[in-house]
Amino acid sequence: MRMYDIIAHKRDGWELTQSEIEFFTEGCTNGTIPDYQTAALLMAIYLNGMSDNEILNFTFAMRDSGFTADLSGIKGPTVDKHSTGGVGDKTTMIVVPIAAAIGCKVVKMSGRGLGHTGGTVDKLESIPGFQSELTHKELVKLVNKVGACMIGHSEDIAPADKKIYDLRDVTATVESLPLIASSIMSKKLACASDCILLDVKFGSGALMKDPGDAMSLASEMVKIGKSAGKKTAAVLTNMDVPLGNAVGNTLEVIEAVKVLKGESKGPLYDISIELTAHMAHLASGLPLAECRRLSEEAVENGTAFKKFKQIVKAQGGNTAYLDDTSLFERARYRCDVRAKQIGYIAFMDTHLIGDASMKLGAGREVKEDEIDHAAGIIIHKKTGDYVEPGQIIATLYANDDHYFHDAVPVFNQAIRYSDMNIDQLPLIYHIIK
Amino acid sequence: MRMYDIIAHKRDGWELTQSEIEFFTEGCTNGTIPDYQTAALLMAIYLNGMSDNEILNFTFAMRDSGFTADLSGIKGPTVDKHSTGGVGDKTTMIVVPIAAAIGCKVVKMSGRGLGHTGGTVDKLESIPGFQSELTHKELVKLVNKVGACMIGHSEDIAPADKKIYDLRDVTATVESLPLIASSIMSKKLACASDCILLDVKFGSGALMKDPGDAMSLASEMVKIGKSAGKKTAAVLTNMDVPLGNAVGNTLEVIEAVKVLKGESKGPLYDISIELTAHMAHLASGLPLAECRRLSEEAVENGTAFKKFKQIVKAQGGNTAYLDDTSLFERARYRCDVRAKQIGYIAFMDTHLIGDASMKLGAGREVKEDEIDHAAGIIIHKKTGDYVEPGQIIATLYANDDHYFHDAVPVFNQAIRYSDMNIDQLPLIYHIIK
Repeated sequence: MRMYDIIAHKRDGWELTQSEIEFFTEGCTNGTIPDYQTAALLMAIYLNGMSDNEILNFTFAMRDSGFTADLSGIKGPTVDKHSTGGVGDKTTMIVVPIAAAIGCKVVKMSGRGLGHTGGTVDKLESIPGFQSELTHKELVKLVNKVGACMIGHSEDIAPADKKIYDLRDVTATVESLPLIASSIMSKKLACASDCILLDVKFGSGALMKDPGDAMSLASEMVKIGKSAGKKTAAVLTNMDVPLGNAVGNTLEVIEAVKVLKGESKGPLYDISIELTAHMAHLASGLPLAECRRLSEEAVENGTAFKKFKQIVKAQGGNTAYLDDTSLFERARYRCDVRAKQIGYIAFMDTHLIGDASMKLGAGREVKEDEIDHAAGIIIHKKTGDYVEPGQIIATLYANDDHYFHDAVPVFNQAIRYSDMNIDQLPLIYHIIK
Repeated sequence: MRMYDIIAHKRDGWELTQSEIEFFTEGCTNGTIPDYQTAALLMAIYLNGMSDNEILNFTFAMRDSGFTADLSGIKGPTVDKHSTGGVGDKTTMIVVPIAAAIGCKVVKMSGRGLGHTGGTVDKLESIPGFQSELTHKELVKLVNKVGACMIGHSEDIAPADKKIYDLRDVTATVESLPLIASSIMSKKLACASDCILLDVKFGSGALMKDPGDAMSLASEMVKIGKSAGKKTAAVLTNMDVPLGNAVGNTLEVIEAVKVLKGESKGPLYDISIELTAHMAHLASGLPLAECRRLSEEAVENGTAFKKFKQIVKAQGGNTAYLDDTSLFERARYRCDVRAKQIGYIAFMDTHLIGDASMKLGAGREVKEDEIDHAAGIIIHKKTGDYVEPGQIIATLYANDDHYFHDAVPVFNQAIRYSDMNIDQLPLIYHIIK
């Protein structure tokens, strides 16, 4: 078998066979296939697509390129949650403790990744002492004891995906449905939970701008999960506005704590409850409404926040910071951004808000970048709010006040005003089971 | 400017700007753009195409990546001929001397390349002493003196094309009209003749299988030539059967000599006269019919063959071999291939016949391969001929008789029989001016 022929077949719109896909995935991982051939194939896949069959075979081949977690030591069905990512998305820190509080076993492994803020583990590392690396034995023990863990991906999980993702990132082949679906699902399957809940985001701050595209992606991933024998569902959620009010690592932990304590209701709370309910529904089989009620109750009666502290403590974190979030180190400088005109905020380009947050030091542009945990943005006015000139829309935080010169114009560019209030798409757009 | 954005633009079907194309071509040549990014762009070009404007800018950028020949020292307009390549295509060795004999100044630079037999310079090197490398000064002197030269490409001609072609060759992006047209024309323009005649081949032994595709390629190349201020035309010729009867380096030189001596008429002679007539027509402006008559006369009265000897001698070759071709060293072994059944030869897969010739040692699979000048095939029966079982269709020549085990089945695979004689496409399909 020759990689040349595999490229030519995909170029000509043929369906690749299972053995062609395995040959390519293996060769790409062990380095026998040069990057330029992989790049040509990725562009051909981007432009010509992949059939369900090809996506499934590709997902399995990437899953099998590395280590698959052995969760057999955990009592009860395990459940995983994955978000396709968005600006200010701190739901994992909220959803995992609530789910564990109502009896789920949650093994949550997150990538660190590049982006506007860090990944979930970067956020959690804002809490002094928090350890995001556990041995397999520690993981099983911890989940059996407290019901959940939130750790970083092992390097051994789907190394083919890592290799291919790095190439997609520099060859303009990221935004491809088959490549996104197989990438996410190969890791989820290697993480090996029995149930998988997918939070597929759409809108200006998401990978998929259009709800229709997000729906197709969600359907594909649910299909893959079920074909692999996992209980799988997807919730389509709106990322056309930042989720909650905080963007930035420490700022997001503080916001998550507020929601877990029941002090903050609104879209972030609503989405978190919905996601938790679906996780519990998949894992327990209880009716969804019952799962929703249990989730809300766990926030109300304090067990969710208590569970969060248990998990953080079990992973070495200092929970005093969660009881009193004023202990968190804050950024040295702050800068208010004010409304430029009168009217309704018609649109917030969430991607640009993420860019502004990165310019403040909250994210990583390249792998080697250090994250500034204290940097970020608190948004006071959101899409649909009525403002008058001079009213504060957001506060930017940084440890170097030169960063504001770059970040403020980007933030301003993200805001569009209107004389009328414009209807928005719903927060939860669709459920795919 | 970032290569990433250039890839994304082409991926999304945008027209690349002149500066984007120059940035890419330059970066690819000097190595600042990694091969995997170039490969992704090439596949995007393959699948999304290029506008006339893009093709022109790309051609000029590749031409300008290296050295452009200075032919100002040659008296009279210069004329170049280029064939898109085919199995057993020895027309250059015939056409160049005839054209020079009737007063054209021909500067013919050929690539060595990979393929079923060598390139024109490999073929000519079958003649003992023949030198295919000349300095610029020698070239000008020689063309002024004898009217023509046939030499190898300098490494400095369009180095961007060399770099990009090598990548296309391993990423399944060779058969792309914009990439083929710009590749050929960048070299032709750097070779700097005033007139360019293109021999665009179609059929089973050509890059373009379909006459329609060949027509599009030819039109595109003629457009480029004219835009660059060159007198340009294209002749579309049939490569569905091998051209002439010989395939292999020495064997083709011998066949070319026969045609030049007027001893062999038929398709090879007809195509050669037609090509020469068009070259002379472009260079002199004389009516085509007059140019055709002059070309035929030059063969008839012996001046064409005399001119060939003059050129070969001026380039150091021993012309005694041309006067008496029995002096050429022959292959040690021969093997006849016989008809398997009764009927008409309905089709000869010319590409497969080329493969058979390569297996005999006549071509190069990789750059480092040595060519066996004596190896090759003489075809006795061609498409349309009626054969009976046991009749000899072809004779294979090799210096290692083990090669026949591989070559004979490939040759047999190339032949298809029929009860009826099937119409063939004409030898000269179309002229584009």
